[in-house]
Amino acid sequence: MTDQATTTFADVSRVEEVAPGRFTAAAHPEWTIGGKPNGGYLLAMLGRAATSSASHRDVLAASAHYLRAPEPGPVELGVEVLRTGRSASQVRARLTQNDTSCVEAMFTLGALDAESKPYWGEGMPEPEGREYADCVPVTGPAGGGPGPVIMDQVDLRIQPEDLGFGRGAPSGAGVLRGWLGLPGGADFDPLSLLYAVDAFPPATLDIALTGWVPTLELTAYVRALPAPGPVRVLHKAQLIEGNRVDEVCLVWDSRGRLVAQATQLAGIRLDPPA
Amino acid sequence: MTDQATTTFADVSRVEEVAPGRFTAAAHPEWTIGGKPNGGYLLAMLGRAATSSASHRDVLAASAHYLRAPEPGPVELGVEVLRTGRSASQVRARLTQNDTSCVEAMFTLGALDAESKPYWGEGMPEPEGREYADCVPVTGPAGGGPGPVIMDQVDLRIQPEDLGFGRGAPSGAGVLRGWLGLPGGADFDPLSLLYAVDAFPPATLDIALTGWVPTLELTAYVRALPAPGPVRVLHKAQLIEGNRVDEVCLVWDSRGRLVAQATQLAGIRLDPPA
Repeated sequence: MTDQATTTFADVSRVEEVAPGRFTAAAHPEWTIGGKPNGGYLLAMLGRAATSSASHRDVLAASAHYLRAPEPGPVELGVEVLRTGRSASQVRARLTQNDTSCVEAMFTLGALDAESKPYWGEGMPEPEGREYADCVPVTGPAGGGPGPVIMDQVDLRIQPEDLGFGRGAPSGAGVLRGWLGLPGGADFDPLSLLYAVDAFPPATLDIALTGWVPTLELTAYVRALPAPGPVRVLHKAQLIEGNRVDEVCLVWDSRGRLVAQATQLAGIRLDPPA
Repeated sequence: MTDQATTTFADVSRVEEVAPGRFTAAAHPEWTIGGKPNGGYLLAMLGRAATSSASHRDVLAASAHYLRAPEPGPVELGVEVLRTGRSASQVRARLTQNDTSCVEAMFTLGALDAESKPYWGEGMPEPEGREYADCVPVTGPAGGGPGPVIMDQVDLRIQPEDLGFGRGAPSGAGVLRGWLGLPGGADFDPLSLLYAVDAFPPATLDIALTGWVPTLELTAYVRALPAPGPVRVLHKAQLIEGNRVDEVCLVWDSRGRLVAQATQLAGIRLDPPA
């Protein structure tokens, strides 16, 4: 994050209801990678429209299929509440630009309990990686220009061992570990966690240098209300085959509790192995 | 699987187009757990309607939110092709019963290449567990009755070490490893793999004995066309918190290649830890 960050996450993901189930919003030009809005940021915007339309306030599960990347600027969101149950509601949401669908999402909403504790978590990795102060801030392209300018809006830090891609020497492990903070040091909530699970650069950078790795599908589960402070992120690639890669993202809060997790399938172009 | 299996997977997941984008199907009474159709089976049915409506034939990614469990019997499927691209199409699909939505799904479709090979897979676990012949067939409730009668339709085998729950002694690891074969020894395809990722009993049985663990959300990626023969399955729980559990399912074909993977969020009721 540099001094260029001008807006809060609540600002850039704001939605305005213009008719029942119809919202307008603006995809911020600085919350982009290569000129295209970040996918998790768009999912958070959809989640904000979904939760403001339903009687349950927290996103428990979100899944999105990405059809086209919208341009920065005005977008519309359409929301349909499909079911309102006692403990959960289900909502469909669509982000369009110029009447063309860009993101199709589904949400299961409920209530996250601030007092909840893990009952059993032995199947989940423990938080790993260096502490916040030992990680290196990642910034956007020097002098502006077409790159991950979103990195100048947030406080994204990666541990030095995982930054080999920056000097053309990826480790080969396919793992990026570090921390994420919101503009102005704002606390995370279930909606901004939908951004957090897609905030890191592609974990494939730690394997091979490639161009854009466009998300085809992203599914996120919010598991607990996050404590104040930046979140610890582990972003890892699992399998590259047939020009597609799956990545897993785990997000822990400042207490070390897993608060969100995601899986995504993305397109990738690589030269054949030597 | 017992001699009671009477129908192929293609039969029980058949859909019939009655109008453009509108299909009818029948949820088979024997493909049920506690009288309710299996969620992966319903997703496969939706995938069949989706792929028959689009120009791309293979499911690459499927995500579904489960609103209500339908009863066995007639269901309707509505399909909307949202985008037809060069390498992928996106399709929305909904399964209803008596005009009430039961499952809301989204599909990204494409073409899986029979010749594809993994480019890099170091982030994915290797196939693990005992061989097919060393696993124990799991069957439905003795004498019929309200249980997982679907287990009599398929060839589902779990390795002995992971069957402690059957004698009230779960291992605590939250992992079930074994194999799955379709009725009549039919080969798997991308659609039946959508069933495979949800075929195993809840991995939470290996932690604590509970009632039904209803799926809230299920996302599956089909990574490769499967070779003939039964598939190897690893089904594991990761974190139980707030009456919800996430489970990961990995499916390898008879060559040991990862062909499908899934994550699901499900509801679970447990006593507080002692």
